[in-house]
Amino acid sequence: MKKIELFAKNGFKDTGFSPLLVHESPYMKVLNFNFKPGQELPVHSHAIDGELTIAVLEGTGAFLSQDGSIPAGPGDVLVSEIAVPHGLRAETAMRVLVTIAPPI
Amino acid sequence: MKKIELFAKNGFKDTGFSPLLVHESPYMKVLNFNFKPGQELPVHSHAIDGELTIAVLEGTGAFLSQDGSIPAGPGDVLVSEIAVPHGLRAETAMRVLVTIAPPI
Repeated sequence: MKKIELFAKNGFKDTGFSPLLVHESPYMKVLNFNFKPGQELPVHSHAIDGELTIAVLEGTGAFLSQDGSIPAGPGDVLVSEIAVPHGLRAETAMRVLVTIAPPI
Repeated sequence: MKKIELFAKNGFKDTGFSPLLVHESPYMKVLNFNFKPGQELPVHSHAIDGELTIAVLEGTGAFLSQDGSIPAGPGDVLVSEIAVPHGLRAETAMRVLVTIAPPI
């Protein structure tokens, strides 16, 4: 059992979103990404089985797909297959938690 | 791909924490639990392989274990084996996201 304080452990970068590896095991991979306004995780996918969730902890922006964008705000959770193209763009400073199972 | 707006979908109950099944698949189970001040998820465990995370979206309280408690606030993530006793107690109104992999 361990606790990770994301707000203390990970900040923001001018050069792109700031990633933090929160946890990695045979069961899951957990990451925290922080975005300054305008920064984005471009739409991408991996041709493997599994799913991911993106939970918005702070800030607003949009979940991205091949077809367009969906508004994203605090308490919103995106669920996607890893093989389905997905991404994120921040309008205000955003902190999100990404969980991938099984881990990539 | 789907988006779930936890803040709109799940409220609070007087009789105990309010659970919402966010997603269930062969890869993971995702739940949202909302607690009024003083409500708790008692310490419990399941004798199976796998891990869970508890991410605090709003509010403050404590992550519980057999040995005591650890302060929990926004942006804090607890990682625990499913077989290790764990729980949560709210001091202020709390919203947490629980992810279990593989799903129970």
